Amino acid sequence: MRFSIPIRVYIEDTDAGGIVYYVNYLKYMERARSEFLRACGFEHRELLQQDILFVVHKSTVHYKKPATMDEALVSTLWIKNQAKVRVIFQQTIARQSDGEVLCEAENEIACVRYSDKKPQRIPAQLREGFATISGKNAQTHFESDK
Amino acid sequence: MRFSIPIRVYIEDTDAGGIVYYVNYLKYMERARSEFLRACGFEHRELLQQDILFVVHKSTVHYKKPATMDEALVSTLWIKNQAKVRVIFQQTIARQSDGEVLCEAENEIACVRYSDKKPQRIPAQLREGFATISGKNAQTHFESDK
Amino acid sequence: MRFSIPIRVYIEDTDAGGIVYYVNYLKYMERARSEFLRACGFEHRELLQQDILFVVHKSTVHYKKPATMDEALVSTLWIKNQAKVRVIFQQTIARQSDGEVLCEAENEIACVRYSDKKPQRIPAQLREGFATISGKNAQTHFESDK
Amino acid sequence: MRFSIPIRVYIEDTDAGGIVYYVNYLKYMERARSEFLRACGFEHRELLQQDILFVVHKSTVHYKKPATMDEALVSTLWIKNQAKVRVIFQQTIARQSDGEVLCEAENEIACVRYSDKKPQRIPAQLREGFATISGKNAQTHFESDK
Repeated sequence: MRFSIPIRVYIEDTDAGGIVYYVNYLKYMERARSEFLRACGFEHRELLQQDILFVVHKSTVHYKKPATMDEALVSTLWIKNQAKVRVIFQQTIARQSDGEVLCEAENEIACVRYSDKKPQRIPAQLREGFATISGKNAQTHFESDK
Repeated sequence: MRFSIPIRVYIEDTDAGGIVYYVNYLKYMERARSEFLRACGFEHRELLQQDILFVVHKSTVHYKKPATMDEALVSTLWIKNQAKVRVIFQQTIARQSDGEVLCEAENEIACVRYSDKKPQRIPAQLREGFATISGKNAQTHFESDK
Repeated sequence: MRFSIPIRVYIEDTDAGGIVYYVNYLKYMERARSEFLRACGFEHRELLQQDILFVVHKSTVHYKKPATMDEALVSTLWIKNQAKVRVIFQQTIARQSDGEVLCEAENEIACVRYSDKKPQRIPAQLREGFATISGKNAQTHFESDK
Repeated sequence: MRFSIPIRVYIEDTDAGGIVYYVNYLKYMERARSEFLRACGFEHRELLQQDILFVVHKSTVHYKKPATMDEALVSTLWIKNQAKVRVIFQQTIARQSDGEVLCEAENEIACVRYSDKKPQRIPAQLREGFATISGKNAQTHFESDK
């Protein structure tokens, strides 16, 4: 089960090589995670007020082909694994026109306290929200998490 | 006659002050100009291939109130004045919820050759495109341009 | 009396036009303000802990010539005017090689409370710090500020 | 043999979490690669004119601890492996004060033609430059590269 948002490449995203500056794919991926969170009924703003912050812990990114100025892209995610404190997202950035994947990544996100940046359990309501969107597979991961 | 696009505030847009990093309003404004260009039937990509580049020549920006994480905004533009080589855009960033303007600016854009960055006339097709979207007022400016 | 820092153009600063993406000049200018603050004995980090945040209120920017990849630049500021709540900085970005000014701006900075973003007086210690660096002229402005 | 440059955290680098926005560590790493290139006698600007572009092909990044506003950091690199078309850089971002590593990454860089983005051999002069800076180990990699 996958979650996607459209992305448009603007001048701000490009570099002197004439293509999307590679770190910006990570921004496109985070936009998808933020919209996924919103689709689950949560926003960073209110989570911060509850002392909850999600931080990226590890990323493995494979830049396969460049995206260019003005291109219409799709930023897609699915949950590979969910544990008490961490969620692993599989993410891709693909061309909208032909679906070719330009960049793919595995991003491990940790839940920390905003106040002291120490790890904390992902709140139950959020885990349930993730599971709702992520479907049966994710739920299995959720249940097997010890 | 105005042209607007929706903008969502993401983490990438914020700073340690907990609000949108002020230079990012200028990115939101440029996205509106790029989408306006697209609505007129043009894209930067093809214009670059025709040796046409638009560069910002002058900006006067008034930052009135901060936008915050997750906020839904509207980026609006209208053409204040069009001349042979330059277009002056009036632009605002407003909250979607109540329409309050958070940032307003006047941006003067110049048309230059991509190859040597020298000023060049805005191609007639583009000026007509601008006029179509911008309505009678813009057309008047267009005609009175000497 | 002027304060300057060196700036190097990196890929992250450029766009598909092959030149520095124009909003990045504003980042170069803010780096100079941050280093000026540090030279005065202050850092944003500790000011935030004292509920002090500086925000840009108005900017007038004139982009004169493009800077290119790898170029060595100089970001310079001087204080044009200091009042209770606001400071107006004159700022330039110039090429290091020949001193040609590529971008110049007037940036009006306001002191606000970090907690509620309401205006507050610039703390006396900071105003004195600014005056020390800014020399006699700035001190005059400081004294005449009602 | 390692190559390092100092980095200062500015407001532009932070996010609403009050810490360095994680993708910006990748910018800090690229600045080190650009300065390393310059120390080897090359600049991106002239390489582009020779139709040579370096693009990041794969990144594995481990974000260990957050850097905060105003912090003084050190961006360090060394060459793990050099082949005909690719170079693998090991890179760290550490605090200057106590040397603690906040972020570490392995970045695989590919040499492509700027004009069509197809892979091309790293020019001999550049490989020799890399080897000079990188010392005996790198040279061994260089020689064993078939």
